[in-house]
Amino acid sequence: MDASPSALLTDLYQLNMAQAYLEEGHTETAVFEFFVRKLPPQRNFLVAAGLEQALDFLQDLRFSDDELSWLIRSGRFSARLIDYLSGFRFSGDVHAMPEGTVFFANEPILRVTAPLPEAQLVETRLINLLHFQSLIASKAARMALLAPHKLLVDFGLRRAHGAEAGLLAARASYIGGFAGTATVQAEKCFGIPAYGTMAHSFVQSFDDEAAAFEAFAHARPKDLVLLIDTYDTEAAAGKVVALAPRLQALGIAIRGVRIDSGDLVALSRSVRRILDEGSLKEVTIFVSGGIEEETLSSFVREAAPIDGIGIGTSLATSSDAPALDCAYKLQEYAGAPRRKRSTGKATWPGRKQVWRRYNSGGHMVSDVLSTEDDVQEGEPLIVPILQEGRVVAHRPSLQDIRTYARKHLERLPKGFEGVQIGTPYPVHVAARLQQLATAVDLRTK
Amino acid sequence: MDASPSALLTDLYQLNMAQAYLEEGHTETAVFEFFVRKLPPQRNFLVAAGLEQALDFLQDLRFSDDELSWLIRSGRFSARLIDYLSGFRFSGDVHAMPEGTVFFANEPILRVTAPLPEAQLVETRLINLLHFQSLIASKAARMALLAPHKLLVDFGLRRAHGAEAGLLAARASYIGGFAGTATVQAEKCFGIPAYGTMAHSFVQSFDDEAAAFEAFAHARPKDLVLLIDTYDTEAAAGKVVALAPRLQALGIAIRGVRIDSGDLVALSRSVRRILDEGSLKEVTIFVSGGIEEETLSSFVREAAPIDGIGIGTSLATSSDAPALDCAYKLQEYAGAPRRKRSTGKATWPGRKQVWRRYNSGGHMVSDVLSTEDDVQEGEPLIVPILQEGRVVAHRPSLQDIRTYARKHLERLPKGFEGVQIGTPYPVHVAARLQQLATAVDLRTK
Repeated sequence: MDASPSALLTDLYQLNMAQAYLEEGHTETAVFEFFVRKLPPQRNFLVAAGLEQALDFLQDLRFSDDELSWLIRSGRFSARLIDYLSGFRFSGDVHAMPEGTVFFANEPILRVTAPLPEAQLVETRLINLLHFQSLIASKAARMALLAPHKLLVDFGLRRAHGAEAGLLAARASYIGGFAGTATVQAEKCFGIPAYGTMAHSFVQSFDDEAAAFEAFAHARPKDLVLLIDTYDTEAAAGKVVALAPRLQALGIAIRGVRIDSGDLVALSRSVRRILDEGSLKEVTIFVSGGIEEETLSSFVREAAPIDGIGIGTSLATSSDAPALDCAYKLQEYAGAPRRKRSTGKATWPGRKQVWRRYNSGGHMVSDVLSTEDDVQEGEPLIVPILQEGRVVAHRPSLQDIRTYARKHLERLPKGFEGVQIGTPYPVHVAARLQQLATAVDLRTK
Repeated sequence: MDASPSALLTDLYQLNMAQAYLEEGHTETAVFEFFVRKLPPQRNFLVAAGLEQALDFLQDLRFSDDELSWLIRSGRFSARLIDYLSGFRFSGDVHAMPEGTVFFANEPILRVTAPLPEAQLVETRLINLLHFQSLIASKAARMALLAPHKLLVDFGLRRAHGAEAGLLAARASYIGGFAGTATVQAEKCFGIPAYGTMAHSFVQSFDDEAAAFEAFAHARPKDLVLLIDTYDTEAAAGKVVALAPRLQALGIAIRGVRIDSGDLVALSRSVRRILDEGSLKEVTIFVSGGIEEETLSSFVREAAPIDGIGIGTSLATSSDAPALDCAYKLQEYAGAPRRKRSTGKATWPGRKQVWRRYNSGGHMVSDVLSTEDDVQEGEPLIVPILQEGRVVAHRPSLQDIRTYARKHLERLPKGFEGVQIGTPYPVHVAARLQQLATAVDLRTK
């Protein structure tokens, strides 16, 4: 079984609709926008991410001979559709907020302008890519803001939802402010610094914990971090103190210890004391295990002597809000603005822009959502990215994206960096956009 | 960037430890078990899934020249480790519960017996694969039990966490009792029936909703399902009634309508009435949009005339419990049982078996967790799968797995099929296993 993402990683109805569009000659220019309808109750802002992979997807999308044969064999589709798919190339325009931009409900972060069947066929995977990385970058940003002076490392691969989720969670969390990841492939693919210590199984494979520490130090002397909670954390800290001089004589420095269970605040204090009294003031304390936003907040509030934190499940699954209520919706077809009015899911029609205003201190004050040509005060956030399938914008490096995100996050309104969710950020709808929605409703039967 | 899963889709510490194991000669036989430590508060049982992909992973795992060069260039690893990785083949044994088996906390669903560095190196991806599919199969099973006579379809690809999550959620939900999926690639890879209707964008691309229905019917006459909630659901149902005779004259039957927003119970009733009065009694009603367990329960409780249900986010992200507290732990090394005693994370040592007892009605009564050779009353659930890297068990088809799961789910204790979580299922720890844990603790310094 080959389960790598293919052109068939899409919903069946996309192919059904493409066939009907071709049949009906509905191939004029369509405009779709991707946006989040409503923020989860646990979020007061979101961070856009995933554009890089979305662009790769659009530019690389082809239907292989194997896929086309399978579609023919399925007996579901017309010869016209198969012929269309065999020559498929994405030829449209893309406008987007750059990755790392802070955004809010109803603000498009990506717009596709293309012949209707093209724009329709790319929907499912575009959502799949933009949704997940924006979800994780947003979660990571909240965590990084909660613990601004700690080294945060993504430990999420094992509990992430599959291979791609693990890899892209490393990327998205790095954008959101994490220092690195445990995932080796993320360093190879994206250049994200990989961090790694040792596991309990290593310690358990020895009859004696101290012997395990010494063996590991000899085998992996660089960046040496010892895991001290397999049996008794404080006793193990004492063993680290006893071991340090022997290692020092060999030129090996212990960089840190890791605690993965128990009361992390209390243990970090007692371990810090044991290390300090053992002349190991420079040895850092790294913790992990079930870290949530509230845990991070408590570390800071209680001034726990914790230097670094490995975060897995709550980051890589965004467990307190594992999905965003997002959509990719038709906003214009053949030159006419469109919208749906479905209960609770109505959309704003037309091609749109988001304008952001700042106060004199440089902090964000409010956004305005307008039609694209309705120039408003403030900074326009949506910029051209692809034109007729080709990149027109500079494609930033991951480092640039991370820096861009940090600058955005520094400009959040005061109070947005805590665990608590306060008053929502104001996003105003421009008068002309409101009038357009009313006009569209009058026209649509 | 090539981001397909590779041998480097692992945690850095696995490589660190492998290097240290080789250095220390710690290459004797190790036994690791994968289990869930604690069920989420929203679950009263779990369904094992992902073994097929786990076995593919174990049997296919190789380090490519490109990966080895990259590891060398990273400067982190010894020549001995690189040499070891270049010849890596999984040569161990695997015992497991077959996919589709119902299981509970602390019950291993997979055991790996292999030289320590091998068993260690496969940890991260094994957890990644077993965790996710077991998570989703468990969620799907709950949903299927809540709505036993409805057609349930996975609509989750767009909100799933990446490509692999979307594809494997289709597989896992099919195991758990879903009838099919919207994801085309899942039909191609796994033979899972694909279902598809139409989207709002199709309707919106016409100025007239009735014209959109007619065009779609002409273009895709087979399995025709019309989406009726873009503007006004009841009005659209009337348009379907008006259209039906014209289509019938052409030999086209409307199979169903889909409602994706609003009060689904109330709308299903009014739409049913409109369809029935319009002589469309055979047209089915399919609903979707934000379906949770409680929604399914309400459909049944209120006897809503709903025939099929598309479920996305809550299924594919298991949104009420997006992760399981699971682990892959060393239980034996070099013939001696091991365990960790970390606070809240202590494990049961040794190679284990799970024995299940049933009452006279065929329903599950209790399980016993024992050491492997401590034969207990009941059905042993863990069976040999791989021996020295080769498959010894029959590899069941996905259909067989689905049937096996259904049989297990039918034998759940009464009351386990509801939304409410009652008394936990009893899992007893055999006396000899308890004695072994005590003995291990006395031995480990």
